[in-house]
Amino acid sequence: MRFTISQIAAAIGMEAEGDLDLTILRATEPADAGPGDLALAMSPKYAEALGQGKARAALLWPGADWQEMGLKAAILVPRPRLAMAGLTAMLDPGQGVEPGIHPSAVIDPSAVIGADVRIGPLSVVGARARIGDGAVIGPHCVIGMDAVLGQGAWLREMVSIGARVTIGDRFIAQPGARIGGDGFSFVTPEVSGAENARKTLGDQGEAKAQAWTRIHSLGSVEIGDDVEVGANCTVDNGTIRNTRIGDGSKLDNLVHVGHNTRVGRDCLLCGQTGVSGSVQIGNNVVLGGQTGVVDNIFIGDGVISGGGTKILSNVPAGRVIMGYPGVKMETHTEIYKAQRRLPRLMRDLDALKKAVFKPGSSD
Amino acid sequence: MRFTISQIAAAIGMEAEGDLDLTILRATEPADAGPGDLALAMSPKYAEALGQGKARAALLWPGADWQEMGLKAAILVPRPRLAMAGLTAMLDPGQGVEPGIHPSAVIDPSAVIGADVRIGPLSVVGARARIGDGAVIGPHCVIGMDAVLGQGAWLREMVSIGARVTIGDRFIAQPGARIGGDGFSFVTPEVSGAENARKTLGDQGEAKAQAWTRIHSLGSVEIGDDVEVGANCTVDNGTIRNTRIGDGSKLDNLVHVGHNTRVGRDCLLCGQTGVSGSVQIGNNVVLGGQTGVVDNIFIGDGVISGGGTKILSNVPAGRVIMGYPGVKMETHTEIYKAQRRLPRLMRDLDALKKAVFKPGSSD
Amino acid sequence: MRFTISQIAAAIGMEAEGDLDLTILRATEPADAGPGDLALAMSPKYAEALGQGKARAALLWPGADWQEMGLKAAILVPRPRLAMAGLTAMLDPGQGVEPGIHPSAVIDPSAVIGADVRIGPLSVVGARARIGDGAVIGPHCVIGMDAVLGQGAWLREMVSIGARVTIGDRFIAQPGARIGGDGFSFVTPEVSGAENARKTLGDQGEAKAQAWTRIHSLGSVEIGDDVEVGANCTVDNGTIRNTRIGDGSKLDNLVHVGHNTRVGRDCLLCGQTGVSGSVQIGNNVVLGGQTGVVDNIFIGDGVISGGGTKILSNVPAGRVIMGYPGVKMETHTEIYKAQRRLPRLMRDLDALKKAVFKPGSSD
Repeated sequence: MRFTISQIAAAIGMEAEGDLDLTILRATEPADAGPGDLALAMSPKYAEALGQGKARAALLWPGADWQEMGLKAAILVPRPRLAMAGLTAMLDPGQGVEPGIHPSAVIDPSAVIGADVRIGPLSVVGARARIGDGAVIGPHCVIGMDAVLGQGAWLREMVSIGARVTIGDRFIAQPGARIGGDGFSFVTPEVSGAENARKTLGDQGEAKAQAWTRIHSLGSVEIGDDVEVGANCTVDNGTIRNTRIGDGSKLDNLVHVGHNTRVGRDCLLCGQTGVSGSVQIGNNVVLGGQTGVVDNIFIGDGVISGGGTKILSNVPAGRVIMGYPGVKMETHTEIYKAQRRLPRLMRDLDALKKAVFKPGSSD
Repeated sequence: MRFTISQIAAAIGMEAEGDLDLTILRATEPADAGPGDLALAMSPKYAEALGQGKARAALLWPGADWQEMGLKAAILVPRPRLAMAGLTAMLDPGQGVEPGIHPSAVIDPSAVIGADVRIGPLSVVGARARIGDGAVIGPHCVIGMDAVLGQGAWLREMVSIGARVTIGDRFIAQPGARIGGDGFSFVTPEVSGAENARKTLGDQGEAKAQAWTRIHSLGSVEIGDDVEVGANCTVDNGTIRNTRIGDGSKLDNLVHVGHNTRVGRDCLLCGQTGVSGSVQIGNNVVLGGQTGVVDNIFIGDGVISGGGTKILSNVPAGRVIMGYPGVKMETHTEIYKAQRRLPRLMRDLDALKKAVFKPGSSD
Repeated sequence: MRFTISQIAAAIGMEAEGDLDLTILRATEPADAGPGDLALAMSPKYAEALGQGKARAALLWPGADWQEMGLKAAILVPRPRLAMAGLTAMLDPGQGVEPGIHPSAVIDPSAVIGADVRIGPLSVVGARARIGDGAVIGPHCVIGMDAVLGQGAWLREMVSIGARVTIGDRFIAQPGARIGGDGFSFVTPEVSGAENARKTLGDQGEAKAQAWTRIHSLGSVEIGDDVEVGANCTVDNGTIRNTRIGDGSKLDNLVHVGHNTRVGRDCLLCGQTGVSGSVQIGNNVVLGGQTGVVDNIFIGDGVISGGGTKILSNVPAGRVIMGYPGVKMETHTEIYKAQRRLPRLMRDLDALKKAVFKPGSSD
């Protein structure tokens, strides 16, 4: 499918210059661009690469002299990644799920399927599940009984949505995402060593070896509007109340959210982040890749954690943290610098000891 | 389904007080409770919330004056989470897998299916696989050839069990769990840089760049009774001997257990924990979320690791550890406190140096 | 299936001694070996165990006196794991995917299926997808539209390959691997707190709370020859250019590779390693388990990281690193030793302060 420069400009909400009727087929990196491509060169550092390609149209940085570059048309964009959002949404060729419900899908007769829903081969929809209008469900998905999926959902292949999960509009799930597995919740008949060690910060006490008894999840998962979940990520059911993901929050691949946890709105949980059970996360929180969060704490609005941070205690709103355990970014930087100087410090201290506690004095 | 207070008391092994024939439909948090609900208020801190709801029956802390609170019936529980285990098992509404074998399932004629087995839509059971009595297999599962699944198994959707895996009774698997993938085992024709670096703790030596040759897994996975594995977790086949998970052990979501590793009985491996190959883990071990364990070490009985611990060497029985690398909890706390004081220590040392090595002296 | 000692010797490229026509059925650990087994005892430390078993043939260490041990035949191997590669490839009993295309598979009529391809029950192959000769596709796989899978691929169950992904020859995928999920890429209309914090290393500035807009992935994934990907691992589509995995590289279970990232040839990414987007990884790189790599950096050829390393900046070729943040292995060891000495150092410093700044002097 081809788009004109003016259609593209409209999609990204910017003004185009030059030949607005020029059509393009796809977007490419500047050096790879052919005459039918739109080159993406939104910073002066790509100017040279642009010259190596054959683009006749480009997205460029503000102030770029596109005519000088031999282009026929250009759109100047002050915030490149924002322009990318509109552009890529327009050009996305999708995954090819056909209209209608594939004959191999297994749909319970009591399920309520909205208008214009697409369901791919071999997907399963359980009893009384409700699928909102315009949803696209890829092949090999399972929607559990009594689950609710809002309008305009887009599920890739092999997504599972457990029984009683409720999800808002415009939900996106990447392959293998698991919403509504049971929470990881076990208890021993008597106080366990792990319970003692938590209380004493390290002493197991006299606890004896015991088997674990399972606490079932009676709660489910409740997901707001405009949420996206990554490939093979997992969001567990709550024990009594529901686990919750707020409107607009996005979970990356292999992210884990434990039972009872509540994630606020417009949060980003980056790749392989793990949030334990019963955590309260505010709004607009960004957790960097491989962040870990212990159970039963709160993380305030607007908190940002660097990659690999292990959050072991409450974090007040607005704080930027890093490290294991996670501390304020500037504290982390200070500690880290001091660590690098430690070996020299050891030598300095030895020299001082020699100078102060002279031979014969106690060391 | 409704239960009487006396049925509930029996399920959790406690005595009830008041109107034992009162029926309840579900359990809720105290403030949300309606007149048909059982409020969960097992600590005095929930007393106020209880007053905000409309519960007529509740689980309460020992010594609570339920009549004073206006309740008709109560069960006093000294160990709340243990009571939750019995209660939630009783009230669990399940995932709705229908009795019998769904006609869309693909069952090899040589497979042996026990009595009262349920198999959901589109599941696959391979040649000569044996499924024990009373097993419930959700939709979209794959049970490999010659695999053995004990009695009373409960598999959620999209679980895969590889060929020749053997699993005991009452196995539970959350969505997307993978038992019996091949181990990650590769070798270069000549000694590799990685091998040298391990031996020398950092020096790759003269090793040249080489391609990796695959070592296939001839072993399988052997799982005991009463084991649960989390969503999207992975347990790999052994190379020659089997990888083993002992009776009563529980793996959380996204946990990885490498080839040849042996996990003892009644262990908990929390979310995103990764155990490399050929590790020997004792009984009653608890590994906190995102723990990592290097290959070829042993971890003694009753070891507990805090969240994010990276275990790089053998750990004796009973130890509580934390950190990267994992050290005794009290050592970790001591090191951590000292780290926090490091920047001040640097300043103190500078002052000392000035005082001791006066201007003109060597620094 | 039985093999003669001479067939086994040929498979591992070594010379056999003794009765070359002796047949064996399987390989076992020395103590478990029956008379029809090949005992694996490639180091003198297994000599005793060999005596406990009933093996008549064994793989032994160079110089071993097999006749003295009562064996009928032996193969002496100087590099045991390399011998294991050839041996296990020969003895692997596989997962039992039947020849041909299972009638329950859903194959788009426009898909191009090569010669001698096996496709298991309930797998889906999309429009115009091309499957190379000799590929074995397990049950419950999804191959997206326009995807290309080379010759001799071996896919376990529940593998998903997104639309337009291209993969070379001899690809191996463990259960639940996801190739070609969409990249995790979001942008706010105005500069976000996370952008500010990155620039200033910790200060969010005045950024206001905003919702995230999605950047779609127009690129796909391009995988070379001889690549293996582990169970439940995820490799994301690129935004414009393709994400790439080079020839001969191997990804372990639960590994994540972000959008646009390029992994070179013959790399090993061990269990639960996470690589963010737009990372450039060289050839022959080995990342230990749970390594994390921040976005937009490069990692040179031959770099090795220890388990749990968090790589936060560029790493030059050939370096061996460890820690959080990852530093040269010897620096890490030095820092770690100094940390262990920190509590004592604090006490030494206090003693020095007392000695130097005597009572009455300023502290």
